[in-house]
Parts: sequence; C-alpha cells; structure tokens
Amino acid sequence: MAILVVGSVAFDSIETPHGSVTKCLGGAATYFALSASNFTPVRVIAVVGEDFTPQHEWVLTSRGVDTQGIERAPGLSFHWTGSYSGTLNEAKTLGTDLNVFAEFAPKIPVQYADSEYLFLANIDPVLQGRVREQMPGVRMVCGDTMNYWIADHRERLLPVLRELDVLLINDGEARMLAGETNLVRAASKVLSMGPKTLVVKHGEYGATAFFGDRSFAGTGSMTLPFRAPALPLADVVDPTGAGDSFAGGFYGYLASQPALTPAVFRSAMFYGGVMGSFAVEKFGTARLETLTRQEIEERFQLFREISHLESAGA
Amino acid sequence: MAILVVGSVAFDSIETPHGSVTKCLGGAATYFALSASNFTPVRVIAVVGEDFTPQHEWVLTSRGVDTQGIERAPGLSFHWTGSYSGTLNEAKTLGTDLNVFAEFAPKIPVQYADSEYLFLANIDPVLQGRVREQMPGVRMVCGDTMNYWIADHRERLLPVLRELDVLLINDGEARMLAGETNLVRAASKVLSMGPKTLVVKHGEYGATAFFGDRSFAGTGSMTLPFRAPALPLADVVDPTGAGDSFAGGFYGYLASQPALTPAVFRSAMFYGGVMGSFAVEKFGTARLETLTRQEIEERFQLFREISHLESAGA
Repeated sequence: MAILVVGSVAFDSIETPHGSVTKCLGGAATYFALSASNFTPVRVIAVVGEDFTPQHEWVLTSRGVDTQGIERAPGLSFHWTGSYSGTLNEAKTLGTDLNVFAEFAPKIPVQYADSEYLFLANIDPVLQGRVREQMPGVRMVCGDTMNYWIADHRERLLPVLRELDVLLINDGEARMLAGETNLVRAASKVLSMGPKTLVVKHGEYGATAFFGDRSFAGTGSMTLPFRAPALPLADVVDPTGAGDSFAGGFYGYLASQPALTPAVFRSAMFYGGVMGSFAVEKFGTARLETLTRQEIEERFQLFREISHLESAGA
Repeated sequence: MAILVVGSVAFDSIETPHGSVTKCLGGAATYFALSASNFTPVRVIAVVGEDFTPQHEWVLTSRGVDTQGIERAPGLSFHWTGSYSGTLNEAKTLGTDLNVFAEFAPKIPVQYADSEYLFLANIDPVLQGRVREQMPGVRMVCGDTMNYWIADHRERLLPVLRELDVLLINDGEARMLAGETNLVRAASKVLSMGPKTLVVKHGEYGATAFFGDRSFAGTGSMTLPFRAPALPLADVVDPTGAGDSFAGGFYGYLASQPALTPAVFRSAMFYGGVMGSFAVEKFGTARLETLTRQEIEERFQLFREISHLESAGA
C-alpha cells in the first residue's frame, strides 16, 4: 500500500574522508522515497526551487516514486553543507540554506488522499502536524525528528509525538528527548510521550525497537525490545541519508505486507538496516539509484547470517 | 574441559549512580572464573595479600572454581578504585594500588598442567607471555588486554598477540591497537598482528567477532563477521567486570563443548553477552555468586528472542 512522505528534497554538499561532492541530490524525503520504493509505492510532498531539474526528478520517477506532490517555487532548493570525520558517526553541519523551504506550506494533491501510510520525515514539527491533520484516515503514522527540534522547539514537537505509531530517531536524540542517559529508561520516557513504538538507530551497531503499553496493530503482543544488526562495513563512503534509508526500508517493508505481525515487524527492522548499509556505500543517492530487489534480498540473508545462531550454511 | 586463567584477584572500590562499595572482591580473573565456572571447570593463577580471607576464597570455591593456584603473599591485595557516570560505558580509574601484584611471578601448579584451554586476562603482557610459555600443549589460547598496554607497552604486547587464538577487547581498544577508526579495517589490522579471531565488545550494543585468514579449529569456514546482541537493561548497577564476565561466558561455553563448530562459536558469543548482562545487575560479583544454569539458559533464550527473525512465540 502507498506511503505518503513529507520532508525535504534538497541538495547536499558533503565532505567525508573518501572525498567530497557539491550540490548532489539529497534530503530526507529523497532518501526515504528511494529506499521505500523498492518495497511499495511512494508519494512525495516537498518543495524545490528552480535548480531542481528534470534530471533530478528522473532520479525519483525512474525508481517509481510519485513526484506529483513536489511543488516548484521561485528561488533555490534547500541546501545542506556538512562534513564527517573520525568514526563518521556524526555529521558536522557547516551550512543550512533553507531557501524555498523557509516558506514551505505542504499541500496534499487530491490523488494522494487515499495513502494509507504516512511518513513525517525530519522537518519543522508544525509542518509535520499540518500534514497529519490533512490525512485523518491513514492506517499508520511514522515519523522522525532531530536534536534541533528536540532542544529548541519541544513545544512544537510534543503534539506530533502523540500522533505517532512509530518514532524513528537515533541514540543521542532519544537520550536528549528523554533527558535520560540509560537507553531503556529513555525509551520508556519517550514512549510515555505518545509514540506506540520507538525505533532507536545506533549507526554502525544496528537499531533497537521498544514497544509501549498500547497495542500497535499486529505488534501488540511484542513487549520485549527487538534488536537488528548493522553490517560491519570497511568503506563507509558517505553516511548522509543512512537514517532516512533505514526508515524507508523499515516502513516500506511494513507497508508492503498484507498484515502487520511481530514477524513482519522484525523483518522490517532488518530491511531498515539493509537499506542503511547500501546508502552509505557511495556518495549521495548513487547506490540507491541502481539497487535491485535481488541485491536487497541477498543482503537481507547476509544480515541473518551474521546475527543468527543457526546459519543457512551450518 | 578445564580452563586455566591467569589474572588479577583483587579488591575494588566502586562508585556508580546506583551507590558505592568499598573493597569488594573483584579482579579480572575473579569475574572470568565465576562466569566460566557455570560451563566448565576453571583453575585460577593469581596472587593475593593477607586481606584475602577464607570468606573471599569461598566465593570462588563454592562455585566450583579451583583456587589452588592462588598464591598468598605478605601485604595487601591489588586494589582498584574507580567510578562510572553518564552512560556508564567507561570507568574512570581513581586509583590503582598494585600491592602484592607488583611482584607477581605466575607459577603453575603441576596439577594444572593438563589444562587444555588457557585464558590470559588483562595483566602485564610479559606475565601473559610467561604463562603461555609454560603451557605449550594447550588446545586454545584466548586473551584480553587494555589501553594502558596498547598505548605504552606495545612492544611487550605484540609477541603475546601472535600466540592467540582469540583476542577479546573492546571497541576503543581495537581502534587504538590498529590506529584506525573504521571497525572493520581496525579488525583486519589487529588480525594481521596474530590473533586468529578478534572479538570486539561494544558494551550495551553487543559484540562482533571477526575472523582472520588462518583457520581456527572448527571455525575455519567462518569468514563473515558475527554479531551478538546485548540485552537492553534499565538498571546497570555496576559495569565492573562485564567484559571479563563476557569472556567467561564465551570461553567457558567453548571449552565445555566436545567440538568447536561455527554453531558452537555463535552460541558462545551469545553466552558472552548473557553473562555480561548478569554481571552488571548488582555491585561487584554479587549477581554471579547466586546465578543458576537455568537462569542462564532462560536469558540465552531471551537473547535469541530479541534478535532473531523467527520467534519461539510467533
């Protein structure tokens, strides 16, 4: 079933120990859509400027992503400049030019109204809330946020959290949101703010799902946390978009399944890790642009092989 | 089959956000022995002072640990003082009183000579090497070290690494030893220094095993890394000894099995995590002192449940 994603379609200028790129296609909604589109139809709500060319749009549409909801505005697209060093676990933001994104007022095309799955990528929580309001009938809402909104705009963020089936954030964000260093206690506090499920991404160490007291579709019987591995990689070329690609694999797989069961949820966590592992192999969206479902399935089996007691081979 | 462990039997004074203890029984060999003794016979080589009482010895012997190799010397036992704060991932050492340990010259009792498995806990690599020399016929040698030896006494450490079947260290130690921030590249460099297998402990995120080119008993067919989870815990009361308890579970299980196969190795990684998760539940060795094999097996199943695609329940 179709996922509607609202978030940034942008240009990134990135420097890592492996090199640098200037103004390559990026943005949370871009990574999410390219990743999720391997599993299910994806529709994008975003705004871009005059520098977004048909070639850029082709990157999305050639992968089956529906771009009718990407609005054009006079001026330049959102542009992020950042660098990574050391363990590559954290980006250093060198510049954020909002450009046309500063005046973004998400409008949902009528043909998107039947989307059953909603993903609120990391943008101003006020905009996340407005999109949520316009989609009252969705089956599931999943969202992301970041330290900026957590630290400086908590009052905007809290109403959005109350509406979420799944919140996907990283370790540092979970601890910051909860004001608690222990991850289990932090998860418990975050769940008390509203999300039925919390997925915490640990970068190179994988991800953990924590479940609240309220039932969440077919996962209601899951009370234990669930941990999915990450693939140890010798070459992390560019970590940009890894978290959004994780979200795309996780949510794309969920939305592709006829029913949400604990087994489906566990596989979704693995597909999240799988898509994150591909995203970092090349600069920008390059690796996601050529990915095949067979490569995804092979890597899914690799994730099983490196984490399960029973091997397919022995 | 019996494991011979050489390392510290000591007293620890510890402060954590959950409280503090003064001069409780500790030391790497103590944690390792208490942990491994749940799986296989363990014999200890260490030196203690006059403050080591029959009550302290009883903690070990009551769990089946052979303490005949613990030498008594005039003076006080090794005493470590440390504290933990924040995420509890790293100890801050406040004091290291070597006391009788300063003159430790490991002597192996004749009745220990038939030990088939050797564990070199974290002590001066020169002493590790001397013990290794005295046990030429062992079937397997596994060892630990720490940043102090890596940074300041590398020339003593390198000959020991060449003798190891398995080196067990944490993330920071692996990266420091290799001079490389990427974990996969760091592992590759460490393996080129001699160990046939490297197990890197990630604290609350689990552990990863990396295999070198040389075959290592029955694991020779393992070329992919293997990742074992850690249990998300709301109350990490005292992280002291978690790594040594991991090593005890890992190596104790390996030594207890008739043959070393990839499946046995994978289970050993899980048992390592299981034992580490128990160790941190109470101050010092308290939790390990009362542990039953049934509790261990139940937690092993819990580790499987939180990490495997197929659940026992669904």
